[in-house]
Amino acid sequence: MSAKYTIGIDFGTLSGRAILVDVADGREVADCVLDYPHAVIDTTLPGTNLHLPPDFALQHPQDYLDVLDTVIPGVLRQSGVAPTDVIGLCIDFTACTLVPINAEGTPLCFLDEFKQNPHAYVKLWKHHAAQPYANRINSLAAEREEPWLARYGGKISSEWLFPKLFEIADCAPEVWSRMAYAIEAGDWLTWLLSGRRTRNFTCAGYKAIYTREDGFPSPDFFAALSPYMANVYEKLDLDGTPILSAGTQVGSLTEEMAQRLGLCAGTAISAATADAHVAAPGLGCCRAGDMFGIFGTSACFMLQADEEKLIPGICGVIRDGLMPGTYGYEAGLCCLGDHFAWLAEQAPAEYTAEAEARGIPVIKVLIERAARLAPGESGILALNWWNGNRSMLVDSDLSGLFVGMTLQTRPEELMRALIEATAFATRAIFETYAAHGMSVHRFVAAGGIARKDPFTMQLYADVLGIDIRIAGSTQIPALSSAIYAAAAAGSAAGGYDTIHEAAGAMHRLSDIVYHPNPAATAVYDKLYAEYIRLHDYFGRGGNDVMKHLRALRSETMAKRTNHNIQP
Amino acid sequence: MSAKYTIGIDFGTLSGRAILVDVADGREVADCVLDYPHAVIDTTLPGTNLHLPPDFALQHPQDYLDVLDTVIPGVLRQSGVAPTDVIGLCIDFTACTLVPINAEGTPLCFLDEFKQNPHAYVKLWKHHAAQPYANRINSLAAEREEPWLARYGGKISSEWLFPKLFEIADCAPEVWSRMAYAIEAGDWLTWLLSGRRTRNFTCAGYKAIYTREDGFPSPDFFAALSPYMANVYEKLDLDGTPILSAGTQVGSLTEEMAQRLGLCAGTAISAATADAHVAAPGLGCCRAGDMFGIFGTSACFMLQADEEKLIPGICGVIRDGLMPGTYGYEAGLCCLGDHFAWLAEQAPAEYTAEAEARGIPVIKVLIERAARLAPGESGILALNWWNGNRSMLVDSDLSGLFVGMTLQTRPEELMRALIEATAFATRAIFETYAAHGMSVHRFVAAGGIARKDPFTMQLYADVLGIDIRIAGSTQIPALSSAIYAAAAAGSAAGGYDTIHEAAGAMHRLSDIVYHPNPAATAVYDKLYAEYIRLHDYFGRGGNDVMKHLRALRSETMAKRTNHNIQP
Repeated sequence: MSAKYTIGIDFGTLSGRAILVDVADGREVADCVLDYPHAVIDTTLPGTNLHLPPDFALQHPQDYLDVLDTVIPGVLRQSGVAPTDVIGLCIDFTACTLVPINAEGTPLCFLDEFKQNPHAYVKLWKHHAAQPYANRINSLAAEREEPWLARYGGKISSEWLFPKLFEIADCAPEVWSRMAYAIEAGDWLTWLLSGRRTRNFTCAGYKAIYTREDGFPSPDFFAALSPYMANVYEKLDLDGTPILSAGTQVGSLTEEMAQRLGLCAGTAISAATADAHVAAPGLGCCRAGDMFGIFGTSACFMLQADEEKLIPGICGVIRDGLMPGTYGYEAGLCCLGDHFAWLAEQAPAEYTAEAEARGIPVIKVLIERAARLAPGESGILALNWWNGNRSMLVDSDLSGLFVGMTLQTRPEELMRALIEATAFATRAIFETYAAHGMSVHRFVAAGGIARKDPFTMQLYADVLGIDIRIAGSTQIPALSSAIYAAAAAGSAAGGYDTIHEAAGAMHRLSDIVYHPNPAATAVYDKLYAEYIRLHDYFGRGGNDVMKHLRALRSETMAKRTNHNIQP
Repeated sequence: MSAKYTIGIDFGTLSGRAILVDVADGREVADCVLDYPHAVIDTTLPGTNLHLPPDFALQHPQDYLDVLDTVIPGVLRQSGVAPTDVIGLCIDFTACTLVPINAEGTPLCFLDEFKQNPHAYVKLWKHHAAQPYANRINSLAAEREEPWLARYGGKISSEWLFPKLFEIADCAPEVWSRMAYAIEAGDWLTWLLSGRRTRNFTCAGYKAIYTREDGFPSPDFFAALSPYMANVYEKLDLDGTPILSAGTQVGSLTEEMAQRLGLCAGTAISAATADAHVAAPGLGCCRAGDMFGIFGTSACFMLQADEEKLIPGICGVIRDGLMPGTYGYEAGLCCLGDHFAWLAEQAPAEYTAEAEARGIPVIKVLIERAARLAPGESGILALNWWNGNRSMLVDSDLSGLFVGMTLQTRPEELMRALIEATAFATRAIFETYAAHGMSVHRFVAAGGIARKDPFTMQLYADVLGIDIRIAGSTQIPALSSAIYAAAAAGSAAGGYDTIHEAAGAMHRLSDIVYHPNPAATAVYDKLYAEYIRLHDYFGRGGNDVMKHLRALRSETMAKRTNHNIQP
């Protein structure tokens, strides 16, 4: 029998990527990426002068179709692999990234009548304008003592499904009434490929308050929230949409899509999954005590454990959520590389000139200079909340802080403080697990920063006081999707019968391990204590200045701009 | 009789300037400036590789001599005025700016044996490394209930005389024992010009804990502080050094200096004064209720009143300290333009490119963009303590803070927040006066920012809710010194018999007045409340993170550098 291959497609914040993988050992044979033409829509709607309110982050669904049309033919062409040897395909997607569609599955923003309505567009995971709706869901749930609230650390994030739906219902009734379904972007594309509408279990569990044991929140709850939301489950088509885990075969590639993409009809299509949760099999993190971190524009830290504990501030715990047989805990930072990119954008001319002369990105110049400082030398401490807080505080209305500046302070000192702050935030997550009797036996890191930035990874090892093993692929999410595709295809087709078998054969780790330096850890212990004090003061109601500043800003901007969108 | 002229010489942080003024009406006939060749010495000692510890700010006394040799001949040459028509000369200087000298008046750092000893150099006003010594003076004074402490708001600043002396005594006994006198730089130059060693009343009062009523602190106090400090009054030569106010004639120009500078021997030399306090006569601020502000690299706010009140956080209240007949109150910000310059130094390439293309300084680009924002729109709040806090908190160990950053935050938003923070700090001073029953009837602003930056002055009017009248000269300190010189010369020589008469004839105001905009004031009222809350939390012991970060930084740097200087 000839070698068999699967394709994993990873839809990130700014681009979509396919890799074609050898099912025998996970070797990546071809890789093709497309940057979304519209990227993140956060200032004006495409083709209009309509200004978006603060905290909007939209996308254009045509970009996702363009990715499919580009990257699947791309990896086939690159690899020379015969379409008949491609046995499966799986998509992972940012989440909750929500597409409002009509009954035929057409995104509403494709229709002329909705082209000027921002609520008809895709709401990207980091669309934070739904925070007021998250707040109302949280306060009503607390009041009613809804049983599901504790499973999500006591707070639903504005990034998740129901706040985004509630925002549409409340701000755009015309979109709400025309919207047949609201669907995760990954599930929308999986439907398109297979002809079968499903919901993936990962997004249902981590982003839509669902477990196999207890189902979704009771309809009563939503009726109590708002008259519009009383019919929210119609918009989700609960009865007609089965909930399936990645690695399960949804169906097979339709004739039409097979022709369009150059694959064979009948190729197994796996249920979709979310772009961070997906990574467990690719990193071989399959047991209780395994944690993996994805270090990208934002960061996710996923822990598996044998038992379910309800931990305040930990975004979610779902049985079988990461791998079958364990409880999967999710925590993370709303912003990681995005922080560093923000500082790099502000870099002074001297730094950009050096970067140009050396032919390297300016962020590298900043990080090199930051690396020359000793722990504690910058004199600066930051709260890493430029994009809000996802774990521990779960509040997207928080914002960033720098303290300690003098007239001698240089940009690399701010950069170092910002990197340190993200590591302190991660340590807060580790310490919360430890305080609840759960330990991390093994920590594996993936993502661009894990592979490309040794300074930052050493700093994390020093702050966390733990060994960090680095992934063996630059494309762990796409690799993991390809592993799920191999499980969905099954052994009869040349794949595997379980995701554990597939992961065992196909996962990829490098030999790189960062060990903590005790002298650095000792200094960071002191700085961490300072960080936690500021974290609790600004994050837990000691001083709500961040919220007041944000509210005043929104008020001022609403007065200045004449857009017709209610923030 | 031909027209008569005086020369005022203003020694600032980075340059020394003379102006030659018509005694009849204060008209500025000539103006000459020299940038100090050594500027501020804060990294390595000149001609050595010796790294300075953090918070050092030294100067080279040769620079001051170079100023005299350049700017006096310069204004004579420019104006064509005959030396016989120059009737007086007065110096104002940054303070406390301390020169350690031997018995002949030679600065110790001119001597070979001391060229490598930082404590033998001039300690500039903003040398903040003496903060630990200020802390010890303050705690001992509080413990002993020293009567003078309340007059200085309950705290002596590290910028003043005794902390700087104590630092020398403690860190550099070899300098202490060779130092015959420690003298303010302005008094050193006045001695050089006149041949008579005096101490100026302004510096004695505001920087050296002296009043005419109570004299200096008791020698017991210093003996209790440290064995070295027991003989501090020998180093000040209390008996041999009369204390004189600016406007009083110290003596007349010596033959030797007359030849060297191109003036006539016998020209009246006024007692010196401090570079901010000097400004009252030049601005016509001569009555109770008059406040003037100097808006430069740092800021001073000087209020005159009919009575003495002891106000916590106000740096000093001295009878006749600003003008004879009133109590002069000093308050200020350690850092004003220095803040904005710091941000401008960090400006991204896009901003520097625009500045270059338009042929304007980058700071102007930033301020223009900041001006386009509405109050509250930046979403950012700052604590303006990059160079510590001089009024209200009197603590140079404090540092800067920014809160409210998001991934959309731009440099002009940080700039606006920083300007606003300095205005809020000023409002805190105004409100403290008001809370003690003292009101500001009239506010006059001088300094580079007052003349050149209408946006910042309008913002101050909005935040303070008061009209701001702008000075009529760009060189108010030098003009005021020239007015003091006219009073020192006396009417017989063609000058005036009192400083009030001289000020009445020679002061200069422009027609520019900034009126507060009530809509802006209403928004700033909200932001001010947030500012004060952060101010008190970080400034009054709620969270000493700024001090901890500074201490950790000093510790780390001390480990890294192999200098032999004890911080």
